[in-house]
Amino acid sequence: MYNQECLFCKKSFPLDIFSPFCPLCGEPLLFPPFIPERKESSDSFPSIKNRLPWLPLTSYDPSLSLGEGGSPLVRCTSLMAHFNLPPLFAKNESFNPTASFKDRGTAVAVQAAVSLGVKKIGTVSTGNMAASTAAYGAKARLKTYLMLKEDTSDLKIASAAVFGPVLIKVRGDYGHVFSESFALGKKHGIYFMNSVDPFRIEGYKMTGYEIFHQLDYRPPDFIFVPLSSGGHLIGLMRAYQNLKQQGRLDKSPAFVGVQADGCSPLVLAFETGKPRFQRIPRGRTAAQSISNPDPPGGNIVLKLIRENEGLLVSVSDGDILKAQKLLAEKEGIFCLPASAASLAGFLKLRTSGRIKKNHVSVMVITGSGLKSPPLTEKPQAHHLSSGLEGFEDIMNNAG
Amino acid sequence: MYNQECLFCKKSFPLDIFSPFCPLCGEPLLFPPFIPERKESSDSFPSIKNRLPWLPLTSYDPSLSLGEGGSPLVRCTSLMAHFNLPPLFAKNESFNPTASFKDRGTAVAVQAAVSLGVKKIGTVSTGNMAASTAAYGAKARLKTYLMLKEDTSDLKIASAAVFGPVLIKVRGDYGHVFSESFALGKKHGIYFMNSVDPFRIEGYKMTGYEIFHQLDYRPPDFIFVPLSSGGHLIGLMRAYQNLKQQGRLDKSPAFVGVQADGCSPLVLAFETGKPRFQRIPRGRTAAQSISNPDPPGGNIVLKLIRENEGLLVSVSDGDILKAQKLLAEKEGIFCLPASAASLAGFLKLRTSGRIKKNHVSVMVITGSGLKSPPLTEKPQAHHLSSGLEGFEDIMNNAG
Repeated sequence: MYNQECLFCKKSFPLDIFSPFCPLCGEPLLFPPFIPERKESSDSFPSIKNRLPWLPLTSYDPSLSLGEGGSPLVRCTSLMAHFNLPPLFAKNESFNPTASFKDRGTAVAVQAAVSLGVKKIGTVSTGNMAASTAAYGAKARLKTYLMLKEDTSDLKIASAAVFGPVLIKVRGDYGHVFSESFALGKKHGIYFMNSVDPFRIEGYKMTGYEIFHQLDYRPPDFIFVPLSSGGHLIGLMRAYQNLKQQGRLDKSPAFVGVQADGCSPLVLAFETGKPRFQRIPRGRTAAQSISNPDPPGGNIVLKLIRENEGLLVSVSDGDILKAQKLLAEKEGIFCLPASAASLAGFLKLRTSGRIKKNHVSVMVITGSGLKSPPLTEKPQAHHLSSGLEGFEDIMNNAG
Repeated sequence: MYNQECLFCKKSFPLDIFSPFCPLCGEPLLFPPFIPERKESSDSFPSIKNRLPWLPLTSYDPSLSLGEGGSPLVRCTSLMAHFNLPPLFAKNESFNPTASFKDRGTAVAVQAAVSLGVKKIGTVSTGNMAASTAAYGAKARLKTYLMLKEDTSDLKIASAAVFGPVLIKVRGDYGHVFSESFALGKKHGIYFMNSVDPFRIEGYKMTGYEIFHQLDYRPPDFIFVPLSSGGHLIGLMRAYQNLKQQGRLDKSPAFVGVQADGCSPLVLAFETGKPRFQRIPRGRTAAQSISNPDPPGGNIVLKLIRENEGLLVSVSDGDILKAQKLLAEKEGIFCLPASAASLAGFLKLRTSGRIKKNHVSVMVITGSGLKSPPLTEKPQAHHLSSGLEGFEDIMNNAG
């Protein structure tokens, strides 16, 4: 079976799905890079099935797939025209089975679970990952355990509960639940595929390969990714590292991880030159999906971002919500507030002069706005009777 | 420019986007079939861009696309095993920009709008079509007018309002609004791309071509489609008619339009042998998206279903909600109740013996469950503290 490695201790350990952390330093373990020889890599569209040599999977069972991946890369022509921007693309991950990027990781982790003979899976999540894990668990006929925060609303968990998992609401320190889950998992044979699970991170690589394919095998100059646990960003960065090692590109894109001002422990460490981040007491941002005061992949993110000339930036909630509105009204993309942090980060770097006229940027839209609470602004509507008398006035006033 | 034809009067009329109905009998006009010579049709994946010779579009502007189409066709292995079913596939249309099949039609209609120089678009809708039209209108920088029912909840219209359209809530008879909208559109230069708009129906053909491609160029035996206005079903049927005329298949699939028992004017006409349907006073079903008491494409549906040996069936709300739960818990697909009518219809025909062991069936999943109100069943959760004491009991009881 595969080994996993610690990027800090530079040591390898045999795969243990119940304990994916370095026994020496506690950092998450990752798979070593899988770099097929260039001749082996076909130019067919990247999918798990087409990219097995790049993944820690010895086989692929199509009956476990919900149709993940293949999301569109849309050129943001209206935003570009409106703000006079250099080329900007949106990689829209809401085109996934449960409408978020999490499905990319769950798809690979569930392939691994089934091939390893695991019968129970679980996750510790406040939202998107819970729904994703429950959906794939249902399809694979695995018993699924979801650990949710006590105050999670019924409305929010309904989109996970519908798949029939065991729901467990937990009171108290949520970071503690994350670490406790692994011990319980080991004891009860439940594979907790949490945010920085190494198979999950391998799944996120697919998005990086797809972007490369969709830009005609050229790397963009910048890729903007909302930053929570760090797993997504790590996977995307490693995809381009792999492509570089394979000799398919000279220069990796500069990755930009974007946090919210109210929850930016990694940006703080990055800006003050610290090798490790300090957890903060609690996140305070409207962008719930990136409100993570103690990101488990944080130190790996700091290391990879520094080694690859990336950047970490934070943006205000005001700019996030403005970006969410811009994406909807200009590009027809309704995304989570956390997803809009990508655009807010891009606009911040554009204003600072960091992004030049000839630079190509991609922002990753992590999930659908249908998953977030309704926007606070109450929709303003005109009112008419079915005869539609009064339509003239609307035309004169509104348009 | 293109002509359009009335299937009943057998007459052609020049295209008028403001008045897409036969001036003689009032039925919706459709485009004649576009059948490229077989050598012209490539085997690349069907998309609007790759299928221009099959569509009433002389050009394609990629900047108007939101990435519609290319939805997965998933083999329902768990449902098949559970019920010992013949081959069953789900064509999951929630993989679309606004998470419903409506985007297929809007994408083509907006291409037409822009190429015809129209600056304003609109639609009369209670849900999915409103969001879809507003999103594409935003991307294309067209002023968009949405006519909504007075009692539409703020929550429901939020997913359309986010794109910045002009919202008009209308009191009173909604069927009347549908017909009034065209006169107002003509007067004010607003192209109302309503449910049976002929460009919209052309867009729905793409789904049919994709299913054919995804099943390795073989037609399935049955295709199940939830039935509301009729536009979606008409588009899908015409796709297979086109493929047959092109010589790519001997026998079309049998199409099965599925209505809810509480709103089944077309099933009633079908079963009693009437050539035209009678509108019913009002729909009474939990499957809101197929609650249409006066479907504008209804008579065309009756005609095409009869000419092509299709079927119309209705299913109870109980069976629809049971099917919605089955799709989630067995297949990991969370869909609208209306979408689950496809599965309920399939199971009904399977029980009746109509579907044999060797028959291949496809059910079209029209939209994401994230767009419907939360399920009435309150999710049942266990409660623990962060130490996770008590987990043993959960394992013993639930696991």
